[in-house]
Amino acid sequence: MTLVECIPNFSEGRRRSVIDALVGAVTAVPGVSLLDAHSDPDHNRSVLTLAGEPQPVLEAVYAAIARAAELIDLDGQRGQHPRIGAADVVPFVPLEGLMLQDCVGFANQLGERVGRELGIPVYLYEAAATRPARVNLAEVRRGEYEGLKTAIETDPERAPDYGPSHLGKAGAVAIGARLPLIAYNVYLNTDDVEIARKIAESIRFSGGGLAHVKALGLLVGGRAQVSMNLTDYTRTSLPRVMEMIRSEAARYGVAVQSAELVGLIPQAALIEAARWYLQLDGFEPNQILEDRLRSRLNSPPQV
Amino acid sequence: MTLVECIPNFSEGRRRSVIDALVGAVTAVPGVSLLDAHSDPDHNRSVLTLAGEPQPVLEAVYAAIARAAELIDLDGQRGQHPRIGAADVVPFVPLEGLMLQDCVGFANQLGERVGRELGIPVYLYEAAATRPARVNLAEVRRGEYEGLKTAIETDPERAPDYGPSHLGKAGAVAIGARLPLIAYNVYLNTDDVEIARKIAESIRFSGGGLAHVKALGLLVGGRAQVSMNLTDYTRTSLPRVMEMIRSEAARYGVAVQSAELVGLIPQAALIEAARWYLQLDGFEPNQILEDRLRSRLNSPPQV
Repeated sequence: MTLVECIPNFSEGRRRSVIDALVGAVTAVPGVSLLDAHSDPDHNRSVLTLAGEPQPVLEAVYAAIARAAELIDLDGQRGQHPRIGAADVVPFVPLEGLMLQDCVGFANQLGERVGRELGIPVYLYEAAATRPARVNLAEVRRGEYEGLKTAIETDPERAPDYGPSHLGKAGAVAIGARLPLIAYNVYLNTDDVEIARKIAESIRFSGGGLAHVKALGLLVGGRAQVSMNLTDYTRTSLPRVMEMIRSEAARYGVAVQSAELVGLIPQAALIEAARWYLQLDGFEPNQILEDRLRSRLNSPPQV
Repeated sequence: MTLVECIPNFSEGRRRSVIDALVGAVTAVPGVSLLDAHSDPDHNRSVLTLAGEPQPVLEAVYAAIARAAELIDLDGQRGQHPRIGAADVVPFVPLEGLMLQDCVGFANQLGERVGRELGIPVYLYEAAATRPARVNLAEVRRGEYEGLKTAIETDPERAPDYGPSHLGKAGAVAIGARLPLIAYNVYLNTDDVEIARKIAESIRFSGGGLAHVKALGLLVGGRAQVSMNLTDYTRTSLPRVMEMIRSEAARYGVAVQSAELVGLIPQAALIEAARWYLQLDGFEPNQILEDRLRSRLNSPPQV
């Protein structure tokens, strides 16, 4: 079995009937599981999290993009969140039995179909990007729908990867591939947000820190918080991030009080943390009782 | 779904035909998975690890005990490992959706049937013990088959929980309930086995240390090793054991070089280690992506 995750973001977080139609388009496809659905009226945006075998997931996401193009008119859409299209951002994430490169393939497969059948311009981003400037989603979304309307027709740098160089009322869509994100926040035993900001600056890639860490210092509930996105936990692991924060915090005379994960985390990221801290150098994932059990229950008894 | 694990130990580790018959008795029952089978000729003993829903597992273990009673004659059996019966020890371990107390019930259910239908004396041990002296398996097995032969008929303290107060050639069987054992070994950066022995003494329950830790100091591959059985990881967690060893090792001027798990470990024990070290106070197991996914794949899509 192979499993892919897809997290399409739609520019509608207020009209229940539209949100229901998008969810309905996804759940109508057999073999697709809706793991999560979150709508934000201020952002005027809905985020669906689906998973399943690649082909049903591609079918479900295509159906939802088509439905969004029918029901959402960007000319009248307003919200706090930047957007370029009705279906705005569609990342594919490899789960069981898949590599990031497989998801680049899915992004291209979906992008080609959306461009050809729906006439919607498609930009490939992150691991699926066809040029360095498009790796960063913020760059793809520069000027938003309103700015892109002109730019797509006049600026060769903004030509889409698939579909026409022209925006309709459904706008454009960014389709990409990335590893699972981990949202990890660490609280310090201080209300001095400056310390959190300095730690964030020192641990993040853009400040000269760890390769796959984005970080901000915030004040949350009266405590200084280092708020992070870990963009590749296979290369920059949770323990390395945590130990670097501990060491930086000690340098300012404070300590880590607690931490939290926002949303979901791949099991492998937690197992790796246990392996590192417990110094289990020769550990094999098939030593996990439940994994062994599941693999045996899915195959005839072996003697 | 509920899942129980059962690890019956049989007093035959040499005759392939007998071992095959025991394995065959287990795998003939639909819904039972054989996770592991290990035979030791020196110990003259075979250990099977099965898992499945409780009723099929009870059926499979009963069938294997009956087969062992037919094929193994304790009067002629010799080996390094202490034993009281053909089927010698049968612990039940709770996995998914079960508590230790459920396994006490299974031990009684199986024990009653073995006593009544097979005429084999049954001693309940560990969490299933009916008196404090029988919690410890070594105490149940005192004198082995040869000693028990007389004691069971003469000493009221050795009367079985089920079945006759008389030993046939199949001997008696100890049936019990326990939590999953974790076999965790920690290597120090020294060849001084005395340090490992002192650390083992200080961390184990019998030395005044942690409640659910058994530990020995050994010399393995030229390095001092603290070899442990963790008998209840839900109450004495891996991180607490590891950090206590680190602290004791530092007191002797040495450090932990690496560690290993022997055999299987419940996923929850590793997740708890990650949670503790990463200080994830509010962590919920349903934040693990794969767990969320499995629960959704096993039920119709929810909107």
